[in-house]
Amino acid sequence: MALVVIGGVAAGLSAAARARRIDPRLDIVVLEKGPVVSYGACGLPYLVEGRVREARELIVHTPEYFRKERNIEVRTGARVVSIAHPRREVELQSGDRVHYDHLIIAAGARCDTDGIAGALQPHVFTLHTLEDAERMRRFIREKRPRRAVVIGAGYIGVEAADALRRNGLRVTVLERSANVLLRDDPHLTAAVRKQLEKHGVELRCGVKASAIEPESVADVACDLVVVSAGFKPNVEMATAAGVELGRTGAIRADDRMETNLHGVYAAGDCAETMHLVTGRPTWIPLGTTANKTGRVAGANAAGSRERFAGVVGTSIVGIFGMGFATTGLSVEQARAEGFSPVAARIEAPVRPRYFPGARTTVELVADRATRRLMGGSAIGEEGAAGRINVIAAALQSRLRVDEFEQLDLAYSPPFAPVWDPLLIAAQQLIKEL
Amino acid sequence: MALVVIGGVAAGLSAAARARRIDPRLDIVVLEKGPVVSYGACGLPYLVEGRVREARELIVHTPEYFRKERNIEVRTGARVVSIAHPRREVELQSGDRVHYDHLIIAAGARCDTDGIAGALQPHVFTLHTLEDAERMRRFIREKRPRRAVVIGAGYIGVEAADALRRNGLRVTVLERSANVLLRDDPHLTAAVRKQLEKHGVELRCGVKASAIEPESVADVACDLVVVSAGFKPNVEMATAAGVELGRTGAIRADDRMETNLHGVYAAGDCAETMHLVTGRPTWIPLGTTANKTGRVAGANAAGSRERFAGVVGTSIVGIFGMGFATTGLSVEQARAEGFSPVAARIEAPVRPRYFPGARTTVELVADRATRRLMGGSAIGEEGAAGRINVIAAALQSRLRVDEFEQLDLAYSPPFAPVWDPLLIAAQQLIKEL
Repeated sequence: MALVVIGGVAAGLSAAARARRIDPRLDIVVLEKGPVVSYGACGLPYLVEGRVREARELIVHTPEYFRKERNIEVRTGARVVSIAHPRREVELQSGDRVHYDHLIIAAGARCDTDGIAGALQPHVFTLHTLEDAERMRRFIREKRPRRAVVIGAGYIGVEAADALRRNGLRVTVLERSANVLLRDDPHLTAAVRKQLEKHGVELRCGVKASAIEPESVADVACDLVVVSAGFKPNVEMATAAGVELGRTGAIRADDRMETNLHGVYAAGDCAETMHLVTGRPTWIPLGTTANKTGRVAGANAAGSRERFAGVVGTSIVGIFGMGFATTGLSVEQARAEGFSPVAARIEAPVRPRYFPGARTTVELVADRATRRLMGGSAIGEEGAAGRINVIAAALQSRLRVDEFEQLDLAYSPPFAPVWDPLLIAAQQLIKEL
Repeated sequence: MALVVIGGVAAGLSAAARARRIDPRLDIVVLEKGPVVSYGACGLPYLVEGRVREARELIVHTPEYFRKERNIEVRTGARVVSIAHPRREVELQSGDRVHYDHLIIAAGARCDTDGIAGALQPHVFTLHTLEDAERMRRFIREKRPRRAVVIGAGYIGVEAADALRRNGLRVTVLERSANVLLRDDPHLTAAVRKQLEKHGVELRCGVKASAIEPESVADVACDLVVVSAGFKPNVEMATAAGVELGRTGAIRADDRMETNLHGVYAAGDCAETMHLVTGRPTWIPLGTTANKTGRVAGANAAGSRERFAGVVGTSIVGIFGMGFATTGLSVEQARAEGFSPVAARIEAPVRPRYFPGARTTVELVADRATRRLMGGSAIGEEGAAGRINVIAAALQSRLRVDEFEQLDLAYSPPFAPVWDPLLIAAQQLIKEL
């Protein structure tokens, strides 16, 4: 039996490694179009920043490691151009054909710069691969740019803005929508704006950057441009082979990560997942989900039977040392999904007042009819990840705010106040309901 | 209508404040036997240590504040000696009688030194009230003790050991049982022992200190002794009035915090609560629970209808900068409760390997038959509180480990690794089941 995996980053290699554990005798081939595999793509902004000093620090394992230690064949520079499912074959750009019994498509996503004129100039970058980051780093070192424009205020956009600012550049972030971080949430946007501006980064929302001039974008002077907008799943090869997409435009897969084609699985940034708050498929491309869906696809492709429950859309991003964490739905998103959301937002210290400590902002959203929690956010220099994870666990457990308010959370002066900000927010939300 | 509250620290004042919010016209009297009210008792070790500089920093509100701002009469030095429920009266040591329609008993707990000979010597301390901490601080400043013995390795005991060591004393902790932190958990005890010893504090378990000599305890030389053992609920006055106790020896209350006497409520360290993992009443005296049960008792005593769901036994303690957090049941505790526990314990970094960061130890316990999570622990310099809170939320939601393993937790390199240690522990536990 032969398993072919298209894509050698998070989802693809999680899938291959998991399949190997399940079935030691499977022939496993991973086809990666780029020159390296198994790198921490989420670390790229920190390579640009300089906190990660060498590109190789981001590389977890080499193809040699996979061959020797896992008996997995990993081919780099192996770009798949088509899938011939009736013949169970993929065709590479080189003309080679590789047979499969099971196929896992972990083709990822890309930053689509097609709609932006001038995107191929040497001072224009995306930040999606290790080569992207290395090229940007070299450019900064050699050309000493002074003003950067970042197009798109998603996670990578704001992380890139942070990294460039710390390298001494003046930075302006242009965002087409009214919101940052892909979340219809004016309060979150206001908080991010405040933090960016505090550290000298300008944010302009509602600005569509359709062309990159040699020395400006949308009338903002610049000598370096990062494009982190137009993110879309790599699905063209899959659809050409008959793989169906979902409403989100990403590959539709069941909870075993199998597509409509029997024996063909999808995982990672090219695939949809189930949103456990809305009960509808969603496309939220994140590293955690890539690893998890890869793992499930790999297990099932190797003959096991595992399922991926879905996501609640938890994420966190650090902006100049402050964590901005969100999960589930914002008020606006919940309303758009047909719920009747009610929210409470509080600011509270993260320790008793006799202990020095930062403050945190916590927002909780619940549905008025069912009182079920729909989402929330936690913003702060400390504890944002821990607090958003508690909300995420509550969403996954379908807790009502009344149950959430009863959570038995840890307290000790060096770690938390006796009323954790999460509970203060829940009490406030109960008052609003 | 008159509400009388016995006890003016966490539970009592939470109750009074909540009752006032519910019913602006209620007559509310709080009777506190000590000289001050409304102080952060959990901050006492940090007052001894010196991180909290002044006793008054621990005081949240004064009696004047309650009178003026909340219309609550708070009497200090008002020791209740008996409750005459048929007459709806409490009698004070002064001979005064105070009428009530509703009564809340928030009499707290005490460190019972009766079983220890020599406990009244001037170099022997408990660490339960603000006066205790101030007296110890003065003693350290004036007498310059060099060797301390701490009797009891519960939370206050280890915090006191930490505080004294940071004041330059040699410290030995004597614990009667085989375990620290009131948890039958050899791994936790080993981890605490390691951390204490790393910082020069000796821990001796299985040592019963029945007498304090002028210059030693159990053959350990010392010139300062802290007794933090023999903790028991203050129930004598309640039982004399006909209030029933539960199996734990604390006051039995229903989920409205009402005792067997109609209109008499109990809250805080003198009362039992429901343990949501075992389904049985428990006595876990902690500040969080005191505040919560006080709030519920106050609401109900004022005519509202609220309930306290119960606890899962979450706690955290800091020992020389490391957090030791536990929730639910250890393997040993789960077995004693009749479950068939299976545990997995992992150590993992709290960030991706290309980022500097500490490691954390996470243990999860599940029941073999139902796969339901029973408890867990998180130990580390970073993130212990956040991680234990996620486990606590899972316990309260009665999640199976298979559901826990699917949690959508936040990931970003500055905050967490792509596979959070919680998920690694869950994966490991699934393998063991």
